[in-house]
Amino acid sequence: MSKLPNISTSIFTVMSKMAAEHNAINLSQGFPNFPVDEKLTAIVAKLATEDIHQYTPMAGYPPLLSKIASLVKHSYQRIIQAETEILVTTGATQGIFTTIQALVESEDEVIILDPSYDSYEAPILLCNAKPVRVALNDDYTPNWTTIEAACSSKTKMIIINNPHNPTGKILTESDIKALENLLEKFPKMILLSDEVYEYITFEEKHISVHTRELLRNRAVVASSFGKSFHITGWKVGYLVAPEPLMTEIKKVHQFLVFSVNSLSQAAISEYLDIVSVDEIGSFYQQKRDYFRQLLSKSRFKLMPCEGTYFQVVSYEAISNENDVDFCKRLITEHGVAAIPISNFYENGKDLHLIRFCFAKDNATLEEAARRLCQI
Amino acid sequence: MSKLPNISTSIFTVMSKMAAEHNAINLSQGFPNFPVDEKLTAIVAKLATEDIHQYTPMAGYPPLLSKIASLVKHSYQRIIQAETEILVTTGATQGIFTTIQALVESEDEVIILDPSYDSYEAPILLCNAKPVRVALNDDYTPNWTTIEAACSSKTKMIIINNPHNPTGKILTESDIKALENLLEKFPKMILLSDEVYEYITFEEKHISVHTRELLRNRAVVASSFGKSFHITGWKVGYLVAPEPLMTEIKKVHQFLVFSVNSLSQAAISEYLDIVSVDEIGSFYQQKRDYFRQLLSKSRFKLMPCEGTYFQVVSYEAISNENDVDFCKRLITEHGVAAIPISNFYENGKDLHLIRFCFAKDNATLEEAARRLCQI
Ligand SMILES: CSCCC(=O)C(=O)O
Ligand SMILES: CSCCC(=O)C(=O)O
Repeated sequence: MSKLPNISTSIFTVMSKMAAEHNAINLSQGFPNFPVDEKLTAIVAKLATEDIHQYTPMAGYPPLLSKIASLVKHSYQRIIQAETEILVTTGATQGIFTTIQALVESEDEVIILDPSYDSYEAPILLCNAKPVRVALNDDYTPNWTTIEAACSSKTKMIIINNPHNPTGKILTESDIKALENLLEKFPKMILLSDEVYEYITFEEKHISVHTRELLRNRAVVASSFGKSFHITGWKVGYLVAPEPLMTEIKKVHQFLVFSVNSLSQAAISEYLDIVSVDEIGSFYQQKRDYFRQLLSKSRFKLMPCEGTYFQVVSYEAISNENDVDFCKRLITEHGVAAIPISNFYENGKDLHLIRFCFAKDNATLEEAARRLCQI
Repeated sequence: MSKLPNISTSIFTVMSKMAAEHNAINLSQGFPNFPVDEKLTAIVAKLATEDIHQYTPMAGYPPLLSKIASLVKHSYQRIIQAETEILVTTGATQGIFTTIQALVESEDEVIILDPSYDSYEAPILLCNAKPVRVALNDDYTPNWTTIEAACSSKTKMIIINNPHNPTGKILTESDIKALENLLEKFPKMILLSDEVYEYITFEEKHISVHTRELLRNRAVVASSFGKSFHITGWKVGYLVAPEPLMTEIKKVHQFLVFSVNSLSQAAISEYLDIVSVDEIGSFYQQKRDYFRQLLSKSRFKLMPCEGTYFQVVSYEAISNENDVDFCKRLITEHGVAAIPISNFYENGKDLHLIRFCFAKDNATLEEAARRLCQI
């Protein structure tokens, strides 16, 4: 007997493992392969010898909390209270799990868009609540009519991921307005806004929930230093929420994990004094453009990519296999690992699409593209 | 509306905060105040510049998994499979929360001894399950008759903490036999054995669940590198469980946190090559003995302490206040912070007992004792 009978090992674990076994170039699981900023590793090396190895306060290392408040102010002109509205988490994943555990009750419903990132469903099921999937339009824009039709007095939460993994879409001004209208119509509903790719946007910046008063007063926003500073292994992220919601989230957090790695918190805190988040978008835009250019000679069809470090491609012109089989063969026969997009759909919808992570050094992108262009 | 209406900020946060505000010596929350082994911080400084900043595999950094298997073999002669029976967690707290979430279902009952550490209850309540508290005897030994009487077909789990926080008790051979009998009588019941102080034992070593075949085949054992290596802030612990249980735990873990801080895992992995756990007990025994000797001239009555880095004392001869008020006054008037033992009881039972953490350098213990001897 299992509490999660339909959940198995996540696709990221499966594909990364298979990539390693076959010595393939791993463009599946999302993580950078280039060196971390030397300024950051120098801070770690220096701090290692200091007195920073015991529990930080439960909500986070106090200097980091105020740096986060400054960062949110810098990026979104939002003033938040460091002491009461921020929680440092063991990656955004822990922040999301904790938010759902704290706020979603048995029998509640939670709206999730389809396709979406795979970590929202399990915490909802563990609350004995019901994930309600609403399909995105074919161009991956939300369909606000069907979303509204799926909402009722039972709907406790809607989860939005902006920029969106895996499709790379960002929400438009009219999406944000529709979201505001929705929250006004359903006064019990809370918004969980997963903005972990907030700084990885290209032609246009995403509209953060932080910037909209109506939304942010009803929302928990999840962010990730792992994504922004190329340190996915550190597992440091944070939540921002109004105090009444945060009070409930902290109740769970203190018994779920209590606190987050002290050395990493202190290092990020110092790093925030010298790093700018304003260049992250253009850094990844160059990677996106380079990867797309390299793949333009291939038989893969490139989908639009407005944000995140993921490029979705169609292999329709290459094969009729389902996307899981195609991904496996891509590893074993061509030495490149990707993620099948069917995995992000509730019912495993297979559109012959796969996702590549382009957070890689140029040599890796070049070699991967060389292999992909031969198919 | 709160999912945890009766849970407030943990006593450790409250007391550590109050200690800081009043510049008191903080013997409340359990953490060492002496420097971490320089060999360990040197490893961190070295690793910081290496390629160790991205996600480790979900279950843990593979070299660390095999070092843990060796450690368990060294300490308890138990052979475990690194790949399938170990999970590295963000501190034992996350391991415990995740175990409960994975294995305890709505309507299930979970036996917790009273008094006990404060992090077991919230995860049980979040599962819509029922924590069933069973009082320890007056000498803090378990009463196996009342424990058995509290068990039924509804009992999914029993949580044991050995060595026991806050009382410092370790279970005897006859306790372990009684536990084995209990598990035989209730074949559905799982044992969660919180052994985070496993290496902090004095005259006698505790009997680990790892050493008993009957128990370990039904048990999840939680361990803490934070406790063993004086790095509570790192938040690295691990679980050991038979594969069928571990499979369920990993399902939750992958969506609760996915993985644990990579740099810390790699550092502990290297450190395990050069450190011995065999001296931890005598290191803390010296601290315990010194602290007890210093307090022997005070009006506090020292309770027995067989393990953990906590010393419980009675202030009966000093005051009639309840233990929370006494602890507050101890901070504000005498400059020493402790933890009221009532906090570990379901109904806040006040026996005029408080707990000091003696994981402190000698100068701190001396100054704290000087202040305490004046009361
Ligand atoms: C936590 S492993 C998955 C990493 C990720 O965000 C992705 O690949 O989508
Ligand atoms: C996680 S804060 C509490 C630390 C501890 O184990 C204790 O003081 O008992």
